[in-house]
Amino acid sequence: MKQTDVLIIGTSAAGATAAITVRRHYPEVSMIAVRKEEHTPVPCGIPYILTTVGSCEKNLMSDDVFVKNNVELLIGEVTALDLAAHTATLVPNGSGESETIQYRKLILGTGSSPIVPPIPGVDLPGVYMACKDPVYLNNVLSAVHAARRLVFVGGGLVGLELAEEARKRGLETAVVELLPHPLELVFDEDLILRAERELVRLGIAMHTGRKVTAIEGKGKVESVLLDDGSRLPADLVMLAIGVTPNIALAQAAGLAADPRRGIAVDRFMRTSHPDVFAAGDCASKVSYFTGLPTNVKLASVAAAEARVAAANLFEVRRQYPGVVGVYSTKIGELAMGLVGLGEKAASSIGIPYIAGYAEAADHHPASMPGTKTLGAKLIFARDTARLIGGQVCCSDSTGEIVNIISTMVQQGMTAEDIATTQIGTHPALNASPVAYQLINAAEMALVSLRKAH
Amino acid sequence: MKQTDVLIIGTSAAGATAAITVRRHYPEVSMIAVRKEEHTPVPCGIPYILTTVGSCEKNLMSDDVFVKNNVELLIGEVTALDLAAHTATLVPNGSGESETIQYRKLILGTGSSPIVPPIPGVDLPGVYMACKDPVYLNNVLSAVHAARRLVFVGGGLVGLELAEEARKRGLETAVVELLPHPLELVFDEDLILRAERELVRLGIAMHTGRKVTAIEGKGKVESVLLDDGSRLPADLVMLAIGVTPNIALAQAAGLAADPRRGIAVDRFMRTSHPDVFAAGDCASKVSYFTGLPTNVKLASVAAAEARVAAANLFEVRRQYPGVVGVYSTKIGELAMGLVGLGEKAASSIGIPYIAGYAEAADHHPASMPGTKTLGAKLIFARDTARLIGGQVCCSDSTGEIVNIISTMVQQGMTAEDIATTQIGTHPALNASPVAYQLINAAEMALVSLRKAH
Repeated sequence: MKQTDVLIIGTSAAGATAAITVRRHYPEVSMIAVRKEEHTPVPCGIPYILTTVGSCEKNLMSDDVFVKNNVELLIGEVTALDLAAHTATLVPNGSGESETIQYRKLILGTGSSPIVPPIPGVDLPGVYMACKDPVYLNNVLSAVHAARRLVFVGGGLVGLELAEEARKRGLETAVVELLPHPLELVFDEDLILRAERELVRLGIAMHTGRKVTAIEGKGKVESVLLDDGSRLPADLVMLAIGVTPNIALAQAAGLAADPRRGIAVDRFMRTSHPDVFAAGDCASKVSYFTGLPTNVKLASVAAAEARVAAANLFEVRRQYPGVVGVYSTKIGELAMGLVGLGEKAASSIGIPYIAGYAEAADHHPASMPGTKTLGAKLIFARDTARLIGGQVCCSDSTGEIVNIISTMVQQGMTAEDIATTQIGTHPALNASPVAYQLINAAEMALVSLRKAH
Repeated sequence: MKQTDVLIIGTSAAGATAAITVRRHYPEVSMIAVRKEEHTPVPCGIPYILTTVGSCEKNLMSDDVFVKNNVELLIGEVTALDLAAHTATLVPNGSGESETIQYRKLILGTGSSPIVPPIPGVDLPGVYMACKDPVYLNNVLSAVHAARRLVFVGGGLVGLELAEEARKRGLETAVVELLPHPLELVFDEDLILRAERELVRLGIAMHTGRKVTAIEGKGKVESVLLDDGSRLPADLVMLAIGVTPNIALAQAAGLAADPRRGIAVDRFMRTSHPDVFAAGDCASKVSYFTGLPTNVKLASVAAAEARVAAANLFEVRRQYPGVVGVYSTKIGELAMGLVGLGEKAASSIGIPYIAGYAEAADHHPASMPGTKTLGAKLIFARDTARLIGGQVCCSDSTGEIVNIISTMVQQGMTAEDIATTQIGTHPALNASPVAYQLINAAEMALVSLRKAH
């Protein structure tokens, strides 16, 4: 029987981050990490294998982190856990015999799987999903190379990123979304409308407010039937309507878990067994803002949770305050991002808010090459003036500006705090110091707050 | 006699920001802004007029902010202030008669002027400085167009940005710097060495640890003589060895001012007269970290100070905690930035510190197009574990990452706070969530802090 201080199941964002963090917090412990597949794809990079990155092999997470942090890496499937005995049964890939691993502490980073909707024809050849399995993804890639007309079901971030990648290959590309607009569950209306215009500009056919009633074809997919009776011809269909937590192993072992919410964890990322932790898509989550269950599934959230779980293995060192939720994407030329609560989300949970908006050239002067307009909206709770969210569009600096906003949210900064924050600016890298968007958005909110009080 | 509630002298970063902020805080007041020149160049954009932006006209601040905020803009020179009478004497440009403006509150944003070193030959034709005067700058531009061999004196940010712009035109370009390395007063050694390699790659001849003993020429500049006896041929010399605050007007009016430190202001940006405020390069400054005088002169600092001054005009609403100092620049392909205290600065003021460093690809996977390595160093006070500074290099996202760091410094965040901050990441915009530099640099510092305690 193999023995280890720490066993990590899963080596994607949660598992890899856990390994690094355990080593930093507990330098002396032994570690084993286990995964099913030979390699782990970079989860957020999966859409980009279609064109930009070009192959699944160029989108793999490096195993260097395990080597560097002295973690034994085993390839195989953990088929059972005995929580009382602190053991896991590992069936190695290939012909090896199953073995038992005894652990002191266990971290579950078993991730999630794409939701397969109960649509007739969903199992036809030519229907795919964004599974995190390199072998499967290579099949998807070959199929995309052979296809001419693609239909993506689901107009969320992954669906749109996949569709844009297909469209970059010059393929006929359509997206079907049940809700009236794409990204409806992510952004506020202002950003959604910009995204829609960009999707049209890219030549992606958007079918919104439409349900797929069947996927049709003789022996392989040929078309997608919508609820208005229209039929979209398709050589290939990809489903991207969300993911569901992988809880089977945990549930079979007797850990508290729920197929919708995942493996139940507390604020220390402990499951219902004190020596078992969970992080990432497989773990239950609550909102930073309400403490209520939330369904955010992001690699950045997985990594943040793993940093808490790993630090707490042998004594409680960290608390996880719930998921803030920081989304960013790039559609065509538009980078866009959201942090925490948008106006829609704030309204829906009944938080009175004040929004401040500012936009300016993202370089200064605006005659600097590559200049775009970048706008930022900040959302403050009306009664405390504290920042509860923000939205940014459209230059690439959006990617780090959302992280400024996220930091400000987590620090509980007020509009006045933000308006007086000192920042730096350079002509080639930022807006002018006079027009810097976050500060001006905060000042605009202060004007509204003064009127409101 | 003209009357106004608020008179602003100077319309660069401080003056323009003051106008915007006054209007937001005091919607009803009347405002007049005065400047000497017909137009105001974007101060940080001045180096870029040489090549990237291409003309002085494309590097002007827009006067829209004055129109939009209902500010009367007058062009002319304020030649005298009568503090007791609350009046300013304005001599308009051209042939108009001088007039008196009575104000309730006055904001001085008179800026700074380039230091002219006492070097023989400094007044030869062909010797220029980065003056913030569009007419002068157009002369510089014509001279650069006609030149073949340029020597820049001063290897700070402005000197190097100017030199790179000249070099982009294919001109023979040399930089002379008194200190052993360029940027010695800005960055730590690691970044300086990278900058030096990039300058060499760009083909800029660096003469460091060298003093200019004379600028030589018959009727116009022909060469620059260094203290080792060597002689650099030059058709054009530009001096960029720093700036000195414009205090003449304030001093003549009896306001406390010092030629080195500027117009004395308190934490509310009030001068020695209660109705007169000053902001920007003309105003005295203290360090955020020590409370001691500091010489940081940046447009972003000017804007931050103006936001405090303007808000405090009719009642104290804001305090200025002193200058954090957020620098960023781009040299060739390297964007680099520094916030607050580097290792060198922390050492020099006797603050025991712990540094944490992390680097990673700035996109994920690293096969995404345009990927560069981005490294971040965070400096924590050893005894409190609070962040006191940071340094970042080398992708363009540096420009906003320094603003995350600056926010973290001003929020007094500890290494543990940063290590557990939730961020967002996207393949095209950021490092992977596992490797995100700021969080990993904080974790590395935590490892060192645990060892140190």
